[in-house]
Amino acid sequence: MRLQQAVPKPLTPFLGLTLIERIIQSLKQKGITEVVIVTGYLSSEVIEKLNESKTGIKLTFIENPEWEKGNGVSALRAKPVLENENFLLLMCDHLFYPDMLEPLSGGSDKSAMWIDRDMDNVFDIDDATKVRLEGKVPGKIGKNLKDFDAVDCGIFYCTNEIFAALERTVSEGKFQLADAVQYLADKGRLDIVDATGKFWIDIDTGKSLRYAKKRVLDSLSKPTDGAISRLFNRRLSKHITCQLVKTGISPNTVSVIAFLLTFFSSVVFAFGERLYLLIGGILVQFSSILDGCDGEIARLKFISSRYGTFLDSVLDRYADSLVIFGLAYGYWRSHGDFLVWALGFFALAGVFAFSYTNARYEAIFETPEQIKVPLRRDMRLLIIAVGAVTNQVLITFLILAALTNIEILRRMIVVRRLLS
Amino acid sequence: MRLQQAVPKPLTPFLGLTLIERIIQSLKQKGITEVVIVTGYLSSEVIEKLNESKTGIKLTFIENPEWEKGNGVSALRAKPVLENENFLLLMCDHLFYPDMLEPLSGGSDKSAMWIDRDMDNVFDIDDATKVRLEGKVPGKIGKNLKDFDAVDCGIFYCTNEIFAALERTVSEGKFQLADAVQYLADKGRLDIVDATGKFWIDIDTGKSLRYAKKRVLDSLSKPTDGAISRLFNRRLSKHITCQLVKTGISPNTVSVIAFLLTFFSSVVFAFGERLYLLIGGILVQFSSILDGCDGEIARLKFISSRYGTFLDSVLDRYADSLVIFGLAYGYWRSHGDFLVWALGFFALAGVFAFSYTNARYEAIFETPEQIKVPLRRDMRLLIIAVGAVTNQVLITFLILAALTNIEILRRMIVVRRLLS
Repeated sequence: MRLQQAVPKPLTPFLGLTLIERIIQSLKQKGITEVVIVTGYLSSEVIEKLNESKTGIKLTFIENPEWEKGNGVSALRAKPVLENENFLLLMCDHLFYPDMLEPLSGGSDKSAMWIDRDMDNVFDIDDATKVRLEGKVPGKIGKNLKDFDAVDCGIFYCTNEIFAALERTVSEGKFQLADAVQYLADKGRLDIVDATGKFWIDIDTGKSLRYAKKRVLDSLSKPTDGAISRLFNRRLSKHITCQLVKTGISPNTVSVIAFLLTFFSSVVFAFGERLYLLIGGILVQFSSILDGCDGEIARLKFISSRYGTFLDSVLDRYADSLVIFGLAYGYWRSHGDFLVWALGFFALAGVFAFSYTNARYEAIFETPEQIKVPLRRDMRLLIIAVGAVTNQVLITFLILAALTNIEILRRMIVVRRLLS
Repeated sequence: MRLQQAVPKPLTPFLGLTLIERIIQSLKQKGITEVVIVTGYLSSEVIEKLNESKTGIKLTFIENPEWEKGNGVSALRAKPVLENENFLLLMCDHLFYPDMLEPLSGGSDKSAMWIDRDMDNVFDIDDATKVRLEGKVPGKIGKNLKDFDAVDCGIFYCTNEIFAALERTVSEGKFQLADAVQYLADKGRLDIVDATGKFWIDIDTGKSLRYAKKRVLDSLSKPTDGAISRLFNRRLSKHITCQLVKTGISPNTVSVIAFLLTFFSSVVFAFGERLYLLIGGILVQFSSILDGCDGEIARLKFISSRYGTFLDSVLDRYADSLVIFGLAYGYWRSHGDFLVWALGFFALAGVFAFSYTNARYEAIFETPEQIKVPLRRDMRLLIIAVGAVTNQVLITFLILAALTNIEILRRMIVVRRLLS
C-alpha cells in the first residue's frame, strides 16, 4: 500500500519529527549549514511547516509546479542557487542515520552516488534503483536492471556537472534524476561512496515506514547501556518513548517525572510493611524504565543538550538517595533495628562513590566499548526493586554496599595500572 | 653570605628536588625534550646525581674544566652539540616558574634575552646584570650600569650567532656570557622578551634561597582553593609539606595517611560523648589541612599524576562518608534519637551530590576564576569540625544538608542559563 497522501510525503510524522525535519537534523548534525528544498505537491504546506519548526539551519525553498514530471526536473530547479558550489543531493523519503554521511570529507571534482552492496539491507528491492558496477565506478543504473551489484541509496554528492547532465537529459524528455546520473556515469564523471552496512531506507509504503520506525527506535540504545537496560528496560522504554514523542513533552519534563516517580516509590517504601515494599519495588523498576525515555526523546528529536544530561544525572543521584533512605526508614519503622541505618549509609556511600568515579573513569578510555562497568543504575535499581519485592532490605543494602565498593576498588586498580 | 660550596650549586636541595632538577622539570613541563648541561665544579657529582634522578628527559653532559674562567667559556663548550639549532640558554642558579617560558613560541632568527623591568621584583639588585634599552632592543648590558631600564633574568633564546659572538669575545679575553650578549646587542642581533611581572630569582645567597623557597611554597595554592584553604589550611599545610618533601614520601602515601586520619576521627566520633567529639573535631580539621599536602608535594616535585588525583578524590569521598557516619552513630549511641540518621542521610546525600556535580559544573567554565563555588571540602570539614567541637551534631547535619543542596540548586539554575 502506498502512503496516504493526506499530508505531503515530506511531512509524514516520524517519531516526533516529520520525515524532512529528521533528514535536515541529520544533515545539521554532520555540519551542514544550509539546505535548499525543492517543493512539489502541497508546496505551501511544506514551506509553512518547516518555517514554523525551528530547524536551526538556513533553509532556501524553491517551488517546482512541474513536480509530477519527475525528480530530475525538481533537481534542475535548484540550478540558480547551487550551480557555483558542490552539494549533497538527497530525497525527502530516504531516511538514514547521520553516520551515512561520514565518508563526506574532502571534496572530489567528480560527482558520486552512495551505494549499498548488501541486498538484504534493501527494504524493497523491486522498487530500488539498481547499479551495475564497472570496476570501481557505476556502469548501468536503473530500476529494471536484471544483473546488478548494488543499489542506489538516494544520496548524491554533486558538482555543477549534474546540472549540465540534467539539462541534457530533460531536453531529451528523460525526466528522472537517474537519467542524469546515468549520463554522468557514461561520461566517466561519477564515483561511488560505498555505504554498505549502514542503515538507510526508502520510505514508500506504510510497511517501510513502520520498519524504519522500528529500526530508529532500536538505535536509541547507548553503547554505555548496562545489561538490564539492553535486555529489558530499553525494550519497554522505547514503546513508551514512541508514545511520549507524539505528545510534544520535553525530555527534561520526562526526567522530572521519572524522578518524581522514584521519589513516590521512596515514600511508599517508608511505610515499611511488606505490601508497601512490593508496590514500591514495582514502582522503582518502572521509574528505572522511564529513566531511559528522556534521552530517547532527546535523541529522536535531535535536541540532546548538556543541560538535559546534567539535570538528569543530578536528579538520578537524588532519586538514588531517596530510595535508599525510604527503604531504611521503612525498615527501621517496622523493625526498629539500628543496623539498617549503618548498612543504608554504606550502601548510599557506595552508590554515590560509584557515580562519582564514573565520569572520570570513563574519560580514561577511548571508546565506550572498552569500559566494562557493571552495576550501572539499571542494575542497581533492579537490585533495589528485587530486594523490596522480596522484603529483604538489609541484604539488599549489604549487596549494594559490597558490590559498589568492590567495583570502586577494581577501578582504582585499573586506573593505577593505566595511568601511573 | 654566599652559599656553602659543600655540594656543587646545581645540587643545592630545593623543596624535594635540587636546583637543577627543578629547572629541568620546569623546562620539561613547557615541552622541552632535551637538555644539554655544561658542568664545572664537582662535575662528576652533578652528572652522577642527575643520571640517578629520573628526570624523564634526554640529558647531554659537557664537562668544562675551565669553568672558573667565566660562564661565557662554559656556554661556548656547548657549540659542538648545539651549533645547528636554536636553543634556550639558562643558568643553573636562576629559578623561575614554568610560565616564565611562555613567550617561547615561534622561533625568531634573532637571539633574545629575558628582561624584567620591575626592579622591586629583583631580589639582589646590586648583583644583577642590568640592561639599558634603546627603543625595544638592549643597548648596554652590565653589572655596573648606573642608568638602566631592566634586569637580565638569566634566560636567553639563542641562534648559532651566540657561538660566533662567544668565540670573538673569549678570544679578546672577555670570558663572561654578558660580553657575548653585549656583542650581539651591538650588532643589532638581540631582541628582548619582557618577563616583567613573572617570578624569577638568582639564587646566590642563603637569604635568596630562603626567599625562593618561600615564594615557591606560596605558589602551591590552587586557583580553585576555597576560602578556608586559602586563609588557613594552606598556611599550615605548606610548612608540613616543606618537611614531608625532605623525607621522600610519595603524594599518594600522604593521601592515604590523610584518609586514615579522617577515618580515625570518625572512629573517635562514634563514641559519641562530648570529649570524643572535641578530639575528633580537632582531628578532622587537621586531616583537612593534611589533605592539601599530597598535591603540594606532587607539584613541588613535578610528579602530579592523574592517578594521584583520582585516588585522592575517591579517598576524600569515603572520608566524607565515614565522618558523617561516625558522627551519626555516636550521636545515636549517646542520645538514641532516630532523627540523627535522617539528617545524616540528607547531609551525606548533599555532600556527595555536591562533589558529583563539581566536575561537570567546573568543566562548563573557561577559567577557574569564573567559578564561584562555596562549600568546598575545606569549608565542609570546618563545619563538621566546629559542629563536633561544640557538640552540635544535629545542627551540623542540618547546615550541611541545607547548604550543599541549596548550592546544587543554584548550580542547576546557572547551568540552565548557560547551556540551554
